[in-house]
Amino acid sequence: MRNLRVNAERIAADLASLAAITDPDRPWTRRAFSPRFDAGRAWLAARFAAAGLQVTTDAGGNLLGTRKGRAGGGTICLGSHSDTVPDGGRFDGVAGVVVALEVARMLEERGLTLRHDLCIADFLAEEVSVFGVSCIGSRAMAGVRPPDWLTLTHDGRSLAEALRAVGGDPERESKRDDICAFFELHIEQGPVLESGGLDIGLVTAIAGITRIEILLTGRPDHAGTAPMHLRADALVAAAGLVQAIDAKARAEAAKGVHFTATVGEFAITPGAANVVPGTARLLIDARAVARGQMEAFLVWLETALAALPAGIAAQSRVLSDNLPTPMDPELIARLEAAAKACGARALHMASGAGHDAAFLARIAPAAMLFVPCREGRSHCPEEWAETADIALGAEVMAEAVLAFDAATEGDPA
Amino acid sequence: MRNLRVNAERIAADLASLAAITDPDRPWTRRAFSPRFDAGRAWLAARFAAAGLQVTTDAGGNLLGTRKGRAGGGTICLGSHSDTVPDGGRFDGVAGVVVALEVARMLEERGLTLRHDLCIADFLAEEVSVFGVSCIGSRAMAGVRPPDWLTLTHDGRSLAEALRAVGGDPERESKRDDICAFFELHIEQGPVLESGGLDIGLVTAIAGITRIEILLTGRPDHAGTAPMHLRADALVAAAGLVQAIDAKARAEAAKGVHFTATVGEFAITPGAANVVPGTARLLIDARAVARGQMEAFLVWLETALAALPAGIAAQSRVLSDNLPTPMDPELIARLEAAAKACGARALHMASGAGHDAAFLARIAPAAMLFVPCREGRSHCPEEWAETADIALGAEVMAEAVLAFDAATEGDPA
Repeated sequence: MRNLRVNAERIAADLASLAAITDPDRPWTRRAFSPRFDAGRAWLAARFAAAGLQVTTDAGGNLLGTRKGRAGGGTICLGSHSDTVPDGGRFDGVAGVVVALEVARMLEERGLTLRHDLCIADFLAEEVSVFGVSCIGSRAMAGVRPPDWLTLTHDGRSLAEALRAVGGDPERESKRDDICAFFELHIEQGPVLESGGLDIGLVTAIAGITRIEILLTGRPDHAGTAPMHLRADALVAAAGLVQAIDAKARAEAAKGVHFTATVGEFAITPGAANVVPGTARLLIDARAVARGQMEAFLVWLETALAALPAGIAAQSRVLSDNLPTPMDPELIARLEAAAKACGARALHMASGAGHDAAFLARIAPAAMLFVPCREGRSHCPEEWAETADIALGAEVMAEAVLAFDAATEGDPA
Repeated sequence: MRNLRVNAERIAADLASLAAITDPDRPWTRRAFSPRFDAGRAWLAARFAAAGLQVTTDAGGNLLGTRKGRAGGGTICLGSHSDTVPDGGRFDGVAGVVVALEVARMLEERGLTLRHDLCIADFLAEEVSVFGVSCIGSRAMAGVRPPDWLTLTHDGRSLAEALRAVGGDPERESKRDDICAFFELHIEQGPVLESGGLDIGLVTAIAGITRIEILLTGRPDHAGTAPMHLRADALVAAAGLVQAIDAKARAEAAKGVHFTATVGEFAITPGAANVVPGTARLLIDARAVARGQMEAFLVWLETALAALPAGIAAQSRVLSDNLPTPMDPELIARLEAAAKACGARALHMASGAGHDAAFLARIAPAAMLFVPCREGRSHCPEEWAETADIALGAEVMAEAVLAFDAATEGDPA
C-alpha cells in the first residue's frame, strides 16, 4: 500500500465495528429509524467526538460533526449515510461516512486547521425507509423534503415522530446556505472500475430516474381450447415489449453516455397454468444523465406501445421523473488533480444510482468519487470493497479538500 | 327451432335451476365438496328420480341414474359433471349432465325402452377441486384414481372423508366393465364453432397435456449501475423464450392439427423496481393431439434453452405428461350420421381441454360432441351457450344413442 496520510487500518476497524451493529439474523441490516440504526449513530457520535468534532443533530435528522476553520465563512461538507437496505451491505453509504470521519481525524492528528469550517455528515435515511421514501436527511438539508412526508406513517408512528426520535425537529427548517463544497465517497455499486483495473470514479453526473408503469390488457382464454391465432395473450405482448426495451436501452447506452432501462417489476393475471394471460404489468426504471436521451426514450416507448399486436390494449403512466444532476466541474477537476497527485487511476463516469449528493447539489457545488466494489455487487450481503481501495479514495478526498481549501478564500458560497 | 324430440324449454329450465344454486357472492360457483355442490346434487337426484331413473351414488362418488334395458348386457352411459370452477360458468359440465337427463326423460315420456341399460352420470369433481386434483369421479370409474389421492387434505378433511360425505366409498373399487358406449356433450370452450357458423363439433381426440416448469437464473444487479452490456437479466431472457414458444406453437398449429403452448404462470425475483431480475420461472402448458408434435416440441424446447444468452442458466422439469386420447371412430361416425339426420352442421375437431371422456375412454368406446359457446368464453361468469344450440346437441346425442342401440346386440362390451 502507498504511504498515505489517512489511516487504512482505522478505516477498516470502523467499518468492522459498524458492520457488527446489525440485526443478527439478517446481516448486514441497520435500517433507518430502527434501534440498530440508533445504536450505529450512538457509536458514530462517540467516534465523531473522539476526533475532536462538535457533534450535533440538525433539524433534518442528520448527524453532524463540525470542526471550526481558521477563517470561517463557508463550510466544506463531507458525508454519506449509515443506514442500510434490508440484508444490505457493509459499504454502501457507510464507507462514505467513515472516510469523511477519517479525513477529519487525519487533520486533527496532524494539527491541520482548514480555513473553512469542516462538516462531517451522516445523512438520515438515504435508502428507501420503512416510510417508503428515501434521502430524507439530504432533502431536508437542501430544503426540498416534501412537507406532506411528515405525515407518512409506519406501524402507527408518523415520520414526524420518527424524526424527533433521532434528534431532529419536524417543526424547524434545516436548509443550509453555508456549504461551499460537498464531497461524497461511495462504492461504485457497478462493475466498471473493477473490470477496468481502476481506482477512482470521478462522477460527472447522477442519472435522472424515470419510472413508467405499463398495463397491457389482452383476453384470458382457455389455454387448451383457444387456437393460437385467435389469442390476445398479454404475456406474449409484454415479452415482446421487454425485449424491445432492452434492445433500445442497449442501443442508447452504446452511444457512450450512461443509459439504462430495466423492467424490475413484472406480473401477469390470472397466473393460472391453464389460462392464457389476460393482463401484464411492467414497471420500467429508466436512467439517463443526458436528459435528451430520456425524452427520446419516452417518445420511443409510446411508439412501441402503439405497435403492440392487435387485441392488446396498453396504458402507460409516468410514476416519477427526476432530472439528472450534473456534478460541479470545478470540484470534479479538484478530485481529478487529487487522484493524479495520489497516483490513483481515475475514470470519469456517471452514477446510475441516486445519492445524497444529488440533493446537496441543489444548495452547493457537489462532487462524488467512487471506489471499486467486488463484482459490482451491492444491496446484498456479499457487497465488498477492499480496505486499500477505500483508503486510497479517502486519500484522494483529503487531497482534494486540502487543495480546495488552500485555493479558495473561504467566503460563503 | 327445428321440431325436436328433446324438450328445449326443459333443458333451459334445468340449467336455470342449477345456476341458481350458487355461492351468492360469486356467481356461478358450485365447487365440488361444498354445501352448494351437495344442494345441486340433491336437486339433480330428484330430477333423475322424476325421470324414472334409479338413483345411486357409486363408490367413486358419481351420481348415477339408471334405466334398465330390454336385453341388458351392456350399458350406454351419458354424462358430464355438475361442479364448477370458482366464478365459473353455467354450462361447462352442467350442459352435459342436463342433456343426458333430457335424453333419458325423452325416452321415458315416449315409452321407448332401449335394448341396453342406460346410465346417466354426474361425475364427481371434474374441475380442479380444493384437493388440487381433477376428474376424481371419472378416474375412479375407470379404475385409475391414484390410491394416494385419498390422503390429500383440505381444511383438515381428507379426500377419503369428503368422498364419503358425497355418498362414495373410499374402501371400495368402482371400476366399471359393462359400458359399451359413452357419450359426453360439452360446450366447446373455444371460438371455432361460433366463428364458423357450425352447430356440432365431433371430437376426434382429447389433447394430451404436458406441463413443463422452466427456471432461469441470471444475476440480480443494481438497475442503475450495471451497464446494459454487462447484465444477465433473467426477465429479458425469459421474455425471449416466451416469444419463441409462442412462435413455435403457432407454427405447429399452422400444420392443421390442434396444438397449443401457453405460458400461464410467470414470475420473477426479486421483483424490485431498482434491481435487474435475477430469476424467472415459467410454467408451460402444451397440448397436442398428435403425440409426435408434442415430442418434437419438447426436443425443440431443449434446443431453445441451450441457446439462451450467456450468463443465463436454465433448468427444466416435466411436471406432468399425459398422452392424447383418441375418441372411438365408430361412435364418432354414429354422431356424424346423427348430426346429418338432424340437419346439424358438424365439424371434426380436437378437444384442447381435458374431459371426463378421456378417462371413460380407458374402459369403453367413448365419444364427445361440442356445442358452440359465446365468443369461446369459459371458466368465467360470462360463459354462455344458447338453448337452441344445446337442444340441437341433445337431439343429435339422442339420435346417436337410438341408432347405436338399434344396431348393436346389447352384449357386454
